[in-house]
Amino acid sequence: MTPRQNRQRDRGIPEATVARLPVYLRALTGLQEREVATVSSEELAAAAGVNSAKLRKDLSHLGSYGTRGVGYEVEYLVYQISRELGLTQDWVVAIIGVGNLGRALAGYGGFASRGFRVAGLLDADEAIVGQEISGKTVAHIDRLEEMIAEHGVSIAVIATPAGAAQGVCDRVVASGVTSVLNFAPVVLSVPEGVDVRKVDLSIELQILAFHEQRKAGGPGDYEPVAGGGEDPPGPAQYVEAVEA
Amino acid sequence: MTPRQNRQRDRGIPEATVARLPVYLRALTGLQEREVATVSSEELAAAAGVNSAKLRKDLSHLGSYGTRGVGYEVEYLVYQISRELGLTQDWVVAIIGVGNLGRALAGYGGFASRGFRVAGLLDADEAIVGQEISGKTVAHIDRLEEMIAEHGVSIAVIATPAGAAQGVCDRVVASGVTSVLNFAPVVLSVPEGVDVRKVDLSIELQILAFHEQRKAGGPGDYEPVAGGGEDPPGPAQYVEAVEA
Repeated sequence: MTPRQNRQRDRGIPEATVARLPVYLRALTGLQEREVATVSSEELAAAAGVNSAKLRKDLSHLGSYGTRGVGYEVEYLVYQISRELGLTQDWVVAIIGVGNLGRALAGYGGFASRGFRVAGLLDADEAIVGQEISGKTVAHIDRLEEMIAEHGVSIAVIATPAGAAQGVCDRVVASGVTSVLNFAPVVLSVPEGVDVRKVDLSIELQILAFHEQRKAGGPGDYEPVAGGGEDPPGPAQYVEAVEA
Repeated sequence: MTPRQNRQRDRGIPEATVARLPVYLRALTGLQEREVATVSSEELAAAAGVNSAKLRKDLSHLGSYGTRGVGYEVEYLVYQISRELGLTQDWVVAIIGVGNLGRALAGYGGFASRGFRVAGLLDADEAIVGQEISGKTVAHIDRLEEMIAEHGVSIAVIATPAGAAQGVCDRVVASGVTSVLNFAPVVLSVPEGVDVRKVDLSIELQILAFHEQRKAGGPGDYEPVAGGGEDPPGPAQYVEAVEA
């Protein structure tokens, strides 16, 4: 159901495509740095880690079809994706919670280069308030609402301990912020119309563990489960066609 | 082509399914914490942010089909996914680069709870070497090979500055490590057989920006591009069927 709703709301771009656009953009920026002017769908797909049919379909949602025998013009595609993602304008971000992760995020080069401007750092710990980190002075969390209004913060990055995250989230939402990036290890409840994305730093490690295990010969205690079995040809075939 | 290779290597589980298993696991762990014993595919799908048909297909690769009218048994499904991902065994991790991000990772609770044991922290900065962080003493990067051998490190987490990352990567690969989690803002070259996953902390922010822009009424300077247009029904319909 969600894809159909998103499709209407987002003028035809499926959520899964939206999630891949930043990956394409990262690959394209790498090409730009090496002064590559055009790229074939195969090359770009390989750089982004998807197959080229999926890449071409994703880009067709942006009205970008490339030129046969030439491929895609890197600079124009960077512009198209950036515009589609909303990166051609600046986004004002506040980082709440200035522990190690908050500090890492405050100094993260990948934010500024994508149009994310960190307007403020906030923390509840008096020992941290007043410290200067990456050129910003940490403000007390009491000043949260004031800072959101003053700087026009549109995205709140929550990097507090788990126990503090929902309270902070409620306050930023009450102040009119409708986008929240959550690094705290907790599921946040928000009213409709507010988008929350959660970053779990262990997910990529789990995917690595899967492959590492396979290299070592598969799960030691694996027993085929009734109805499961080794690589059932029907469904696997179907999923491959669907997800490749 | 990759999915077919992966399918053979990974006994029938497509890469996209592997990437979603940690997300299901996170949702299931949340249910376990609330002492929920069984869950319908609809509930679990909603908690994981996918649709239920995709969830059921993903879980069918694990031989897990649920029971009509009852759903999935939470505890058993946690076990099945954990086993499939290789989380029922311990993985020894070394974190290289102990700046703010390395420190945040060293203290990240989500690693230990998933079976990732941080055996060592390494840095090239003499001012950091010897510091105790989350119960571990930071070792000098010169001791990298020794530490990998001594502790049986199987996954290297690279959180160095961009300029140092490839050199560190070459050294861990030469020491026999075949899984690398890269936080440095650079694309690493590795020989075949080595898996690298890259974490870009700005990707989720970009997805939020996309939706934030849509809430505000879409890209200001949008002009339909030849061949693109507003929500072309054919391809969009197809993609929805494919990716939902």
